[in-house]
Amino acid sequence: MKNIIIASTSTLHNGSYLEYLLPLLENHFKKVSTILFIPYARPGGISHDSYTDKVRQVFSTINKKTKGIHEFDNPTEAIENAEGIFTGGGNTFVLVNELYRNNIIDSLENAVNKGTPYLGTSAGSNICGLTMNTTNDMPIVYPPSFRTLGFVSFNINPHYLDPDLNSTHMGETRETRINEFHSFNPQPVLGLREGSWLEVKGNSIKLKGDLTARLFRKNHSPEEINPDTELKDLK
Amino acid sequence: MKNIIIASTSTLHNGSYLEYLLPLLENHFKKVSTILFIPYARPGGISHDSYTDKVRQVFSTINKKTKGIHEFDNPTEAIENAEGIFTGGGNTFVLVNELYRNNIIDSLENAVNKGTPYLGTSAGSNICGLTMNTTNDMPIVYPPSFRTLGFVSFNINPHYLDPDLNSTHMGETRETRINEFHSFNPQPVLGLREGSWLEVKGNSIKLKGDLTARLFRKNHSPEEINPDTELKDLK
Repeated sequence: MKNIIIASTSTLHNGSYLEYLLPLLENHFKKVSTILFIPYARPGGISHDSYTDKVRQVFSTINKKTKGIHEFDNPTEAIENAEGIFTGGGNTFVLVNELYRNNIIDSLENAVNKGTPYLGTSAGSNICGLTMNTTNDMPIVYPPSFRTLGFVSFNINPHYLDPDLNSTHMGETRETRINEFHSFNPQPVLGLREGSWLEVKGNSIKLKGDLTARLFRKNHSPEEINPDTELKDLK
Repeated sequence: MKNIIIASTSTLHNGSYLEYLLPLLENHFKKVSTILFIPYARPGGISHDSYTDKVRQVFSTINKKTKGIHEFDNPTEAIENAEGIFTGGGNTFVLVNELYRNNIIDSLENAVNKGTPYLGTSAGSNICGLTMNTTNDMPIVYPPSFRTLGFVSFNINPHYLDPDLNSTHMGETRETRINEFHSFNPQPVLGLREGSWLEVKGNSIKLKGDLTARLFRKNHSPEEINPDTELKDLK
């Protein structure tokens, strides 16, 4: 039975890394003593080791050990044997490129579908959707595909940002970008604001946190989704 | 001899489409009676016809005819025979995908290198750099490559945006994104603010407009470049 947290962001403004999620994670990873961390998204180009150390420090406060997937000779086995998995944020293109390069897309999909508890934040959440076509990140590397893990049957837009009505900047708003996506792709896109997450338990998918989320469906007006709404039929 | 305008944006806040560039374009396209327009970037998912109509309307005010490349049976011949070429903004992934799909990367490169006057705005400017890895656009389609036309030996970041110091949003700033690019790629990136453009004449590349541009080089601190600076040695 799937057991997944798909969080918009790791960090809230004025908060520390993973702070707002920690009480939740204590329960989510209740039966887990060592978290397998996937540091591939490398925020700011940080090394796998440094990124893993940062995560290790936080998880130690809830008495979890952390091991980076890059510390294993065989990443596929690391995933198959993992008690719990966390994929951190950073650049989604870099992350997806490494997932393909290390040939672990399928094993990650299988492990999580079979019930290994998973946490994704930001880029690590983007990959829970059908494709990474709705990432906000800059395409700094060219991955072999945009197909991702499909733990939910729609796309995620993390760090969803409402249009700034006072802006004089002429670049596209997030909403415009997602509408453009729908000129070329059919699947719904859920814009998750910072502080929101999806809780996937078996077939149930629920919006959590205090905020509404913005749902974009092809040929429909966007709508606001309330916390605790069941999204299992969204596809 | 190359004769190119690489503009950050087609439209300034409170301005109309191409308005601020028109006096310049009258001279740039002085010997051109019909502009070949490449509408592939489809801003907002607009059709090729509608986009071309919008451009036609503006160019008619300086007595130029406009023909969309999609109106030709053979796009390669359209480029080879063009008197002047304009590639408009929209989504860079959609644009580059169509350039490859229609197999016109090489003919576009050849025509412009041989002297056909070219104008790019936004996505149409992104493709003048070595690669499209520094676009701001959402990756709504998967192009066969990120390699672009390389009319300049660096990358362009159009609509360059300074960090908003009052923002509480945790998504990356533009500067952070470009620094991440340099963790994986060597070439310089020029952040062109809205209202700036590059004027390429033969081997000369000069920043034009009233604003400075922000230059990012791997392992260097970013620097501000003044208007009229010669950038031909930047690579």
